[in-house]
Amino acid sequence: MTSDELKRQAAWRAVGFVTDGMVLGLGHGSTSAFAVERIAERRRDGSLPGIVCIPCSKEVAQHAEGLGLPLTTLDAHPAIDLTIDGADEVDPAMDLIKGGGGALLREKIVADASEREIIIVDASKMSARLGTRFALPVEVVPFGWRVEAEALESLGAHVLRRGGDDPFLTDQRNYVLDCDFGPIESPAELATRLDARPGVVAHGLFVSLATDLVVASETGTQHFVRGSDLSEVIRR
Amino acid sequence: MTSDELKRQAAWRAVGFVTDGMVLGLGHGSTSAFAVERIAERRRDGSLPGIVCIPCSKEVAQHAEGLGLPLTTLDAHPAIDLTIDGADEVDPAMDLIKGGGGALLREKIVADASEREIIIVDASKMSARLGTRFALPVEVVPFGWRVEAEALESLGAHVLRRGGDDPFLTDQRNYVLDCDFGPIESPAELATRLDARPGVVAHGLFVSLATDLVVASETGTQHFVRGSDLSEVIRR
Repeated sequence: MTSDELKRQAAWRAVGFVTDGMVLGLGHGSTSAFAVERIAERRRDGSLPGIVCIPCSKEVAQHAEGLGLPLTTLDAHPAIDLTIDGADEVDPAMDLIKGGGGALLREKIVADASEREIIIVDASKMSARLGTRFALPVEVVPFGWRVEAEALESLGAHVLRRGGDDPFLTDQRNYVLDCDFGPIESPAELATRLDARPGVVAHGLFVSLATDLVVASETGTQHFVRGSDLSEVIRR
Repeated sequence: MTSDELKRQAAWRAVGFVTDGMVLGLGHGSTSAFAVERIAERRRDGSLPGIVCIPCSKEVAQHAEGLGLPLTTLDAHPAIDLTIDGADEVDPAMDLIKGGGGALLREKIVADASEREIIIVDASKMSARLGTRFALPVEVVPFGWRVEAEALESLGAHVLRRGGDDPFLTDQRNYVLDCDFGPIESPAELATRLDARPGVVAHGLFVSLATDLVVASETGTQHFVRGSDLSEVIRR
C-alpha cells in the first residue's frame, strides 16, 4: 500500500466520528487533506448538512472552500467539537511533534479549543521518543529570530531556519526554526522552557492535547483513546 | 514637579550609564522617549559616536531616526549591552507590568537579550503587589483571541480587548487584552500559565528581567540594582 493509501484510510476512519451539527477543526497537511475531502464527500451525500468548519491555515481554508464546506471562525465558535489533524511524530503517551507543514500555531490553538482532537497518522510516525524521527518546529517572530536561535542552541538543539536565506513565512508572517534536539527526554519540561522564551510564538510539542489516535498500517487502521497502550503500534 | 519632569529626571539619570560603543535597546513609551532624546543630545555633544540602537517599536524607530541616532537590528547585534525602558508597575522584587504602550513583545525580547535592563519610572508606578494599579496587557493572535479571552477570564481576570470593536493592533498586527487580575499573588506562576496558552504571543509580566531601577520623585532620583530593598520608595 502506498503512503497516500494509508493516510486516506486513517482519515476515513476518523471522519467516521463526525456527526451532523458539529463544529469541526480542519488540520493542515497531506493526511488532514484526505479528511477534508472525505468530510466534503459525506456532506455531498447529504449526511452532514449542519456542520461548520474552522480551518487551521489559509491553505486548508482554500481547499475546504473549494469543496463547498461551510467555514466559520473561532471568533464565532470558540468551542470546537472535534478536530482531525495529522502529526509528524507520536510517542507512547500520545504526545506529538507537529508543525512540519508550518501551521503549528493555529493547529495548537484549535487543538486546545477542541473537545476531541483526533490525530491521524500512518504507522511510520509512531516513535518511542519524540525528536527521534523529526526536528521540532519552533515559530519565532522575525524581530528576535537570531536571539531565539541562539537560545535554542544553548538548550541543546541543532537549529536551521526553514527556507534558509529565503525564509519560509507562516500565516502570521513569522519564521520557523527546525530544531533537532535528538530524542527528547521530557516533552512537557522542554515545552515549558520554550513557552517561556519571549520570541517563541509557538512550538511543535503538543503535550496532552490529543484525545484520540488513528494509526493506519498494512494490516488496517486502529483507533486508540488517550491513555491506551500504544506499544503494539510503536514496535511494529 | 510635573509628571513629565519626573520622567525626564529618571531618564537623564539612566542615560548617565550609557558609554560609547554600546549596543543600546530603546524602550517604547513616554518615559523612554525622554531617554531617547537625552541619548541624542549626548551624541550631538560628540560623547557617544560609536553607539548603535535597537528600537522596541516602529514608533521609537521613527523617533530615534528623526533625532539622528544610528539604528541597527537584533539580527545584526543579538547581544545588547544596555536597555532603558519604562514600566507601568514595579513591585518590591523589581518585577514589572509593562505593555501599556502595546510594545510588550519586542520590549520583552529586547530585555531578555540585554546584559543590563534599566527601568525608569516616577514613584507613582511603585506598588506592593503587581496588578494593584494596572491591568496586565496580554498580546494574542487575532485568530484565537476569543478563546484566549475566555481562558484568561477563567484564570480570574476581567478582560477587555483594547480598542473594543475597533481593536488596537500591535506592531505584529495582534490584539491586546487588558486583563484586570487584581493584586497578583505570584507573578512567576501566572507568567508560566500565560506562557503555556497557545494563542498568547506575549504578556506584560516581566519577571527577573530588570537589572536596575531608577525612581524619580519630588525629592530626587534614586538608583537601585536588582536585589535592593525597595520598601522605601514603595511606601512613599
